[in-house]
Amino acid sequence: MSERLVVIGGDAAGMSAASQARRLKKPGELEIVAFERGHFTSFSACGIPYWVGGDVEERDDLIARSPEAHRERAIDVRMRTEVVEIDARERRVRSRDLASGAEEWTAYDKLVIATGARPLRPDLPGIDAPGVHGVQTLDDGQALLDTLTKTKGRRAVVIGAGYIGVEMAEALLHRGYEVTVVNRAQEPMSTLDPDMGRLVHEAMTGMGITMVNDAEVTKILTGEDGRARAVATDDREFPADVVVLGIGVRPETALARDAGLPVGEHGGLLTDLGMRVRGPVADGAIWAGGDCVEVLDLVSGRHRHIALGTHANKHGQVIGSNVGGGYATFPGVVGTAVSKVCDLEIARTGLREKDARAAGLQYVAVTIESTSRAGYYPGAALMTVKMLAERRTGRLLGTQIVGREGAGKRVDVAAVALTARMTVEQMTALDLGYAPPFSPVWDPVLVAARKAVTAVRAGGA
Amino acid sequence: MSERLVVIGGDAAGMSAASQARRLKKPGELEIVAFERGHFTSFSACGIPYWVGGDVEERDDLIARSPEAHRERAIDVRMRTEVVEIDARERRVRSRDLASGAEEWTAYDKLVIATGARPLRPDLPGIDAPGVHGVQTLDDGQALLDTLTKTKGRRAVVIGAGYIGVEMAEALLHRGYEVTVVNRAQEPMSTLDPDMGRLVHEAMTGMGITMVNDAEVTKILTGEDGRARAVATDDREFPADVVVLGIGVRPETALARDAGLPVGEHGGLLTDLGMRVRGPVADGAIWAGGDCVEVLDLVSGRHRHIALGTHANKHGQVIGSNVGGGYATFPGVVGTAVSKVCDLEIARTGLREKDARAAGLQYVAVTIESTSRAGYYPGAALMTVKMLAERRTGRLLGTQIVGREGAGKRVDVAAVALTARMTVEQMTALDLGYAPPFSPVWDPVLVAARKAVTAVRAGGA
Repeated sequence: MSERLVVIGGDAAGMSAASQARRLKKPGELEIVAFERGHFTSFSACGIPYWVGGDVEERDDLIARSPEAHRERAIDVRMRTEVVEIDARERRVRSRDLASGAEEWTAYDKLVIATGARPLRPDLPGIDAPGVHGVQTLDDGQALLDTLTKTKGRRAVVIGAGYIGVEMAEALLHRGYEVTVVNRAQEPMSTLDPDMGRLVHEAMTGMGITMVNDAEVTKILTGEDGRARAVATDDREFPADVVVLGIGVRPETALARDAGLPVGEHGGLLTDLGMRVRGPVADGAIWAGGDCVEVLDLVSGRHRHIALGTHANKHGQVIGSNVGGGYATFPGVVGTAVSKVCDLEIARTGLREKDARAAGLQYVAVTIESTSRAGYYPGAALMTVKMLAERRTGRLLGTQIVGREGAGKRVDVAAVALTARMTVEQMTALDLGYAPPFSPVWDPVLVAARKAVTAVRAGGA
Repeated sequence: MSERLVVIGGDAAGMSAASQARRLKKPGELEIVAFERGHFTSFSACGIPYWVGGDVEERDDLIARSPEAHRERAIDVRMRTEVVEIDARERRVRSRDLASGAEEWTAYDKLVIATGARPLRPDLPGIDAPGVHGVQTLDDGQALLDTLTKTKGRRAVVIGAGYIGVEMAEALLHRGYEVTVVNRAQEPMSTLDPDMGRLVHEAMTGMGITMVNDAEVTKILTGEDGRARAVATDDREFPADVVVLGIGVRPETALARDAGLPVGEHGGLLTDLGMRVRGPVADGAIWAGGDCVEVLDLVSGRHRHIALGTHANKHGQVIGSNVGGGYATFPGVVGTAVSKVCDLEIARTGLREKDARAAGLQYVAVTIESTSRAGYYPGAALMTVKMLAERRTGRLLGTQIVGREGAGKRVDVAAVALTARMTVEQMTALDLGYAPPFSPVWDPVLVAARKAVTAVRAGGA
């Protein structure tokens, strides 16, 4: 007898889950219905800044798999159809066709919630004015591109200096704009410690971007035509022909909460290691993954919310295996992220100083400078590596890297070491690839580990 | 009362040991004497191909620390002075001033043997003819550069297609030579499996390098002026204005063997984990490190000989800590190496198929193709990743990567995973840095791990 899998959300987590389930179960064994309220499936939101900036030419380059391609694999994708209610007791969902407004109930045996995240949009005067753009969806990206093409303006203000903010700053710089980034925090990239964020600040200033920190936006000023014309803080105004919101996201879980499903302190759904939603309401029939769930941080032992395509894909893979009768788990994250602004590479994994304190961990922190290649090799570029290790045990707690070409992906070494719960002393013996075009004889990560060992020893009992 | 540390060999391992010991012990506590038979201390042999190729301008760029700089730190470096005998029973060494021929005995309390490796120089007719060059030392490099400058020739033959061979092929290509690489093995880079070596072969051919495999050089033919004019194999002749030997090295342990110290099956000195030479003759007073020792391969449990500056530096650090009254160990290697030929990056870690068989391990092997960045991002370059995992347990055994920019250092993820004895299934959950300019949403290493998981499962009991 055939079962039915219903998937809410047609992006990375949902469609990975559907695809993996389809690999394991034939259409006669498992019917798969996926609801997507937008116009696209399986697109790379992470790629939007590069499309807006002109590095990626076509919108469709960002689409990994179209609805038609999913349908060819016997996944019944219903586009522009929003699920408006989950009835977990009756195991059914109510959906609405956004064009006609028609609603219907669809029963499920298994349900995957992959509703993603919604962008933070502060409730400010003028926030909805023409010329103010989010960049979460392909439609957002197209609208922003239209504004860039139509307006003759040359001044852009980006609100927020996290990943999206700094990547959009690069994109707008590429488009020839004078860019100002207005940021509430002490330094940009608050996923780094402020001393490392300071390096990003300086580098972005060096690129000609105006960086405004410690600044709370109070309103968007509009002109006589109703369009945004400036961003105002308490004491200043920043003229803007276009305003981009890069403030971050929150889990989109209204639907799940209305159904009585459990959410955590960051507002994300709570699942077990197999990505099955916890608790009696879900009754073992509901899975969730991607930007709408919280994940276990393996370093701190606490839950976090991280909206990142790479996790969403892994979640989907795990969910698809489990709903397809296989077995897989998502053990958790160590909090790795990498980004760039022009040629500046920014990476982090594990805990910042304040995360370590919040987790009750005492630590030593060290910072070193080294180069991406042997010092004598052409293109050797300076990078700064900060490393945190637990007091006494010397266990690696976190690593942050800011540098140029060749800096960012070095964070992966620390990410694997964190996963393996290595000490910084164990790390000093790591057998990393060495040749002059690739690394100094001591890789920068090992230089940081050596300094951390000294600090741990000096840290006393 | 002051002790005396004697160091034989003034390169990476020896001088790192001396420097680290000096950090821990003041001149009044420990006298340090280092003997070096050559003209230089602490130079980067790995950098010679890039100096010859013109990427590095000055010979002295390759010198990390001169004899004078060492002397300023109270290390008594005796240049052009060769140690010709170790008398372990009396704890003394006999040295010879190479200029005057004068000899003298120097007593030691602690001895560090860092005699390095000697290049293989096959006993062929014509091997000593002018125009035939090794590339082990800075003097070798200068002699080769002199030949390149003086001769009007434009044809170069490189004998050997390991790291040195392929790097020298690039260097000679940069100098405008027509380059032929003559190689005894089935494919170049025999540190890879032949299927991966084949990719290097094809890429080098594409660069205009003539690759001759399965070919045993029988002699160097000389002209009427006595200079090398061609390299001959059984059945062919390859005209050459310059011949470069890149055949590899063996541990330089004649001195140690004459003293009765133990060497292993690869001819390298055998030490404990603190790099102290084993056995009663050494009597606990002798350490050894760098290219003259064998190291433990943590994956196979066997000993190997690996001549690589990064290991030599680590050994020196460990030895210096231990002779200076501290404590450190060198736990072993996983066999990581990275190299490049023009824009082709080549990396490996862990075991090849034949290493696994030799170690008594059964394995599955998978190969995947992926890209260095998100497929839609400019500069996304194809790379091939081969992964070996143990049958049944799924433990990672080895990884080989051949690709373009961004491929080589990805091997570090596998190197850390090998050190932590991870399974390929554990690897699929690794939280590696993702953003479109840095990686596809599944990093190529994870794509390989996923395929390896499938192969392990299919591999049965």
